[in-house]
Amino acid sequence: MKVAVNIHLKKGVLDPQGKAVLNALNSLGFDEVKDVRVGKQILIDIDTNNKEEAIKKAKKMADELLANPVIENYEIEVKE
Amino acid sequence: MKVAVNIHLKKGVLDPQGKAVLNALNSLGFDEVKDVRVGKQILIDIDTNNKEEAIKKAKKMADELLANPVIENYEIEVKE
Repeated sequence: MKVAVNIHLKKGVLDPQGKAVLNALNSLGFDEVKDVRVGKQILIDIDTNNKEEAIKKAKKMADELLANPVIENYEIEVKE
Repeated sequence: MKVAVNIHLKKGVLDPQGKAVLNALNSLGFDEVKDVRVGKQILIDIDTNNKEEAIKKAKKMADELLANPVIENYEIEVKE
């Protein structure tokens, strides 16, 4: 089962990479872009067919290793 | 309208960061993890209420700036 862990900086934490992309998009003529946040998407292939179990495991991985709870939020998404 | 552009290395392109995360997860006891790929998720706030237009614009941004078509694939996801 494939699970995506989407990790983003919390609101209020400065995201200079996002700001750089925003400026680049605006200067390329994409004036309708108001905000950009750059985060990580980690795709994890877990050896189980149980969706609830996969989500639970992914949550544990995010808490223990993948995300930094001080500055980052994450969400889990089951892909297939 | 918020749109996510998920960018990952193409299959066949080596992903050392993903491999490192895989090894770290396995050594933490997550033996059921078979593969990990680390990519980017770019959240873009586009000033439009038209879903089709937002997707079209995001695709253009990905092609022109966000993704490297030689080694990366991307997918567009409308968030809200």
